[in-house]
Amino acid sequence: MPDGSQSLVQTLLNAGVDTCFCSVGTADKHLDSAFSEKSEFKCVPTLFEGVATGAADGYGRMAGKPAAMLSHYGFGLGNGQANLHNARKAKTPMINIVLSQARGEGAGDNVMRESDIEAIARNISPWVHTSDSVEKLPSDAADAVAVATGRPTQISTLIVPEDVLRVENVEPVQAMPAINATRSAEAVIDKTALDEILASLKKGKDCAIMVGGRALQEPHLSLVAKIAKKSGARLISETFPARVQRGSGRPTTERLAYLAEMAEVQLRGLKHLIIVDTKPPVSFFAYPGKASCLVPDDCSVHSLVTPEDDIASTLTSVSEQLGATKVEPDLQEPVKTKLPKRRLTGDKACDVIAAFLPGNAIVSDESQTSGAKLLAKTAGCPKHDLLTLTGGAIGQGLPVAVGAAVACPKRPVIAMTGDGSAMYTIQSLSTMVQEQLDVTTIIFNNFSYAILNVELARVGVEGDAGPRAKSQLDLRGPNLDFVEIGNGMGMRSARVDTCENFASELQRALAESGPHLIEVVIPPTITGLKLKILPSLLNSLKHLPTPLARAVKNTIAP
Amino acid sequence: MPDGSQSLVQTLLNAGVDTCFCSVGTADKHLDSAFSEKSEFKCVPTLFEGVATGAADGYGRMAGKPAAMLSHYGFGLGNGQANLHNARKAKTPMINIVLSQARGEGAGDNVMRESDIEAIARNISPWVHTSDSVEKLPSDAADAVAVATGRPTQISTLIVPEDVLRVENVEPVQAMPAINATRSAEAVIDKTALDEILASLKKGKDCAIMVGGRALQEPHLSLVAKIAKKSGARLISETFPARVQRGSGRPTTERLAYLAEMAEVQLRGLKHLIIVDTKPPVSFFAYPGKASCLVPDDCSVHSLVTPEDDIASTLTSVSEQLGATKVEPDLQEPVKTKLPKRRLTGDKACDVIAAFLPGNAIVSDESQTSGAKLLAKTAGCPKHDLLTLTGGAIGQGLPVAVGAAVACPKRPVIAMTGDGSAMYTIQSLSTMVQEQLDVTTIIFNNFSYAILNVELARVGVEGDAGPRAKSQLDLRGPNLDFVEIGNGMGMRSARVDTCENFASELQRALAESGPHLIEVVIPPTITGLKLKILPSLLNSLKHLPTPLARAVKNTIAP
Repeated sequence: MPDGSQSLVQTLLNAGVDTCFCSVGTADKHLDSAFSEKSEFKCVPTLFEGVATGAADGYGRMAGKPAAMLSHYGFGLGNGQANLHNARKAKTPMINIVLSQARGEGAGDNVMRESDIEAIARNISPWVHTSDSVEKLPSDAADAVAVATGRPTQISTLIVPEDVLRVENVEPVQAMPAINATRSAEAVIDKTALDEILASLKKGKDCAIMVGGRALQEPHLSLVAKIAKKSGARLISETFPARVQRGSGRPTTERLAYLAEMAEVQLRGLKHLIIVDTKPPVSFFAYPGKASCLVPDDCSVHSLVTPEDDIASTLTSVSEQLGATKVEPDLQEPVKTKLPKRRLTGDKACDVIAAFLPGNAIVSDESQTSGAKLLAKTAGCPKHDLLTLTGGAIGQGLPVAVGAAVACPKRPVIAMTGDGSAMYTIQSLSTMVQEQLDVTTIIFNNFSYAILNVELARVGVEGDAGPRAKSQLDLRGPNLDFVEIGNGMGMRSARVDTCENFASELQRALAESGPHLIEVVIPPTITGLKLKILPSLLNSLKHLPTPLARAVKNTIAP
Repeated sequence: MPDGSQSLVQTLLNAGVDTCFCSVGTADKHLDSAFSEKSEFKCVPTLFEGVATGAADGYGRMAGKPAAMLSHYGFGLGNGQANLHNARKAKTPMINIVLSQARGEGAGDNVMRESDIEAIARNISPWVHTSDSVEKLPSDAADAVAVATGRPTQISTLIVPEDVLRVENVEPVQAMPAINATRSAEAVIDKTALDEILASLKKGKDCAIMVGGRALQEPHLSLVAKIAKKSGARLISETFPARVQRGSGRPTTERLAYLAEMAEVQLRGLKHLIIVDTKPPVSFFAYPGKASCLVPDDCSVHSLVTPEDDIASTLTSVSEQLGATKVEPDLQEPVKTKLPKRRLTGDKACDVIAAFLPGNAIVSDESQTSGAKLLAKTAGCPKHDLLTLTGGAIGQGLPVAVGAAVACPKRPVIAMTGDGSAMYTIQSLSTMVQEQLDVTTIIFNNFSYAILNVELARVGVEGDAGPRAKSQLDLRGPNLDFVEIGNGMGMRSARVDTCENFASELQRALAESGPHLIEVVIPPTITGLKLKILPSLLNSLKHLPTPLARAVKNTIAP
């Protein structure tokens, strides 16, 4: 008969969970050997919990089923908090297993004790349960999977005291049915509300459907695109979706702009906003005196599908009532990107990526300002999946790429990240190497502080700059060489600063199996100038009528 | 009149807090400019909150006063959780400032919202307060410092909504008196208990004084050593002290062994254990069927000084009542270490460090198994401070060294760490470079998995090993080159595998200013063998009488 650990692992397998991301060297010995015994159970060690949690997020987004994520005690769970926050915002299914210290006669007030693990877990997990007896462990584990795979999909946290894992003779249990939230398919939306939505859609003009979550993936994306096409409503995607299926031949959406000023322009003039599996738009940061809600004052918001709802039946029903089932939605035309030349900029780098993006690729994007044009440039590329920074907690792009590559070992994965974001979870590179994942990591390095120093000298300020100003520029700037860091983690790494070199390194990375790193050196002055120009540009846009504002779409394409 | 941010900074300065560790690029703009305006306020940016929290811990241990640590939202605080746990266990004074999102009309349900920051903070901070009005911000900040610098010193957490920082016309306030816990100097210990302690000490034999916290630093260390010398009691230090002042000419203590089996041997036969500013000894990990409390059954435990107490007056009083004030305590003799030769091992590496450890050095030790002999080998070195892993949450050694170097810019700092621990907070190297800190980082790399693979091939197992066993060894082992990683972060880095090379690189690192990294390659087979031999050795030791057990002291010296 199995012990607690073995029973836990077998229960997870019974429920379809066959992958666990964990941190090296801290795993409980019983659990570790239980993992090893089951060849069908894949255990991916990482060097830091922030990598393990982000990887479980990427896995869940792409596999459509949960991975387990193993952490230890309150501080291990704390280390994973940022990417658990992002995963929660992504509504990623995930089984968060937290080991707590053994209880009973062997337990003492030792150095690692004294964390309220449940309190930390509740921040990122709607379902938190401590499995305090081994009899209940298997059914608790099955419950955790049932909750995580229910509606909405979510993180469930199972806290297991280490002594529970060691008890012998425990029967694993079979999978439980997924636990769905209260809104059943039949009762999704009342007749009056639905009639209002249908009426808005039938008018079409000044109406937009705001889509997020599952609605950005097939088959729902095609359904909602048919509805939009039939009604004439605009189709606007949430700004930071967990996963969007896009590219040539896929329905097009416009993306809600990240900057509130741009989003306001984008939404101006709308009278009806129909929400499908997302929230009404709010600004990313909160500023005093500025409205957080981005919906125009005279625009009605209608909730059609919430994350708790059965999206397929609702969209099918609306599509039928509108007579949209046989409508051909607007599909993205293929776009062949011409290779740019000479010195790289952020925009040119996006052109190079667009020129070579392989079909069926997965792009994990945390490229911040440097990759601002990525979405517009890659809209007409072969079909691919895009995973974005759902919760604003940086350090997600590389771990999510790890998890996506584990979930989809036959698909090419591209991770794009800024230098600061990369450093948050740089340990991801090591896992890519250890697991030989087919990930091409592109790190934008703009040496921002270094160049300010150069600029200061060029304009002759150096002599006059106070010691404090100068020391800030001298010492505080990151002086990071990602080629050496990548090599140090065992990864083939290259630095490029021209379009031609980037093109050849990217082609090589995509052609060869295994992980590659490309450090893309971007002139910071250009980024800096752009950031300065943007606010005044936006300000002037504000006073323009809606049609002109739509022209902004080119820079904020899906 | 200053705004909220400026008032906060001025209040901190008024209370003697002039250093803040924060993460780059995420700081609130108001607070950032408030930091910059005050040239007497030092702001040290880091690339990850785990570095900032560990650095604030190292600073607090060495400066004896708190630094501020700035993090953002629940997930930023989460990132810092592991080293905040270690700092809490170290009773380090620290002002943990957490920004939360702006409230009011500008607040929306955006992607970063929805964290219960107070719940996360309560795990690591006894005092948690949200400053929800700007009128109260200055006095709340002064309270935070008063709590952190009280008795016991501790982490206080001040949560500040971003909108509060932006309000104008706020008067900073002056420092508040430190808030001490209830036990005043006079009422520290009742007469009966003290008489019992004095009686135990007068017997001397079979009595030990267990010291930790402040008692391991001067002038308390000398006082307690006089008491021990006069009474004949043993002086045993807690296993993982926050800071111990040691070396030639300082009072000697024996260190309680990390492994419970060794500690049991060490404590066997004691009839009285007098606790000074620490807890009665418990085992590091909890195992079923093994006692967590390490105190022998027939040994009485007496609490002389708790962390809440005024240690100086209590020790002085005991010393006077024993007639120990003029006693010369046992002082450590200087020991000149002979340089070992040829291929490095962990033990030989400790010899090399002992041979060159400069006077007044600060050693941050997280070297795990590789540095097991460090304490024994360096006992007779010139006077130095040793900072250890107080809470068992790995990734502390490098950040603590950062903070110690900021607190004591004129003292040489040596950080020792294992490869796994180093990777947890490897971003520390970048801060060392940016601030040009005088830290020599020594990373023990034992390529443990790589060599197992070699060994497997050598004994001819390769052909028979299942694909799973082989893939675990091939892929899961860290394949880290710390010289390249160090160089990648801008640090002068070298790899050594002989005693001679280590000696010359260490001398160079100590002679040159600024940060250096030395990767010490240790043959893993030796470590592996030792770990196998140790349990049986310990087992046999168990059955020996106390005097022989004392011989173990050589390996567990202070």
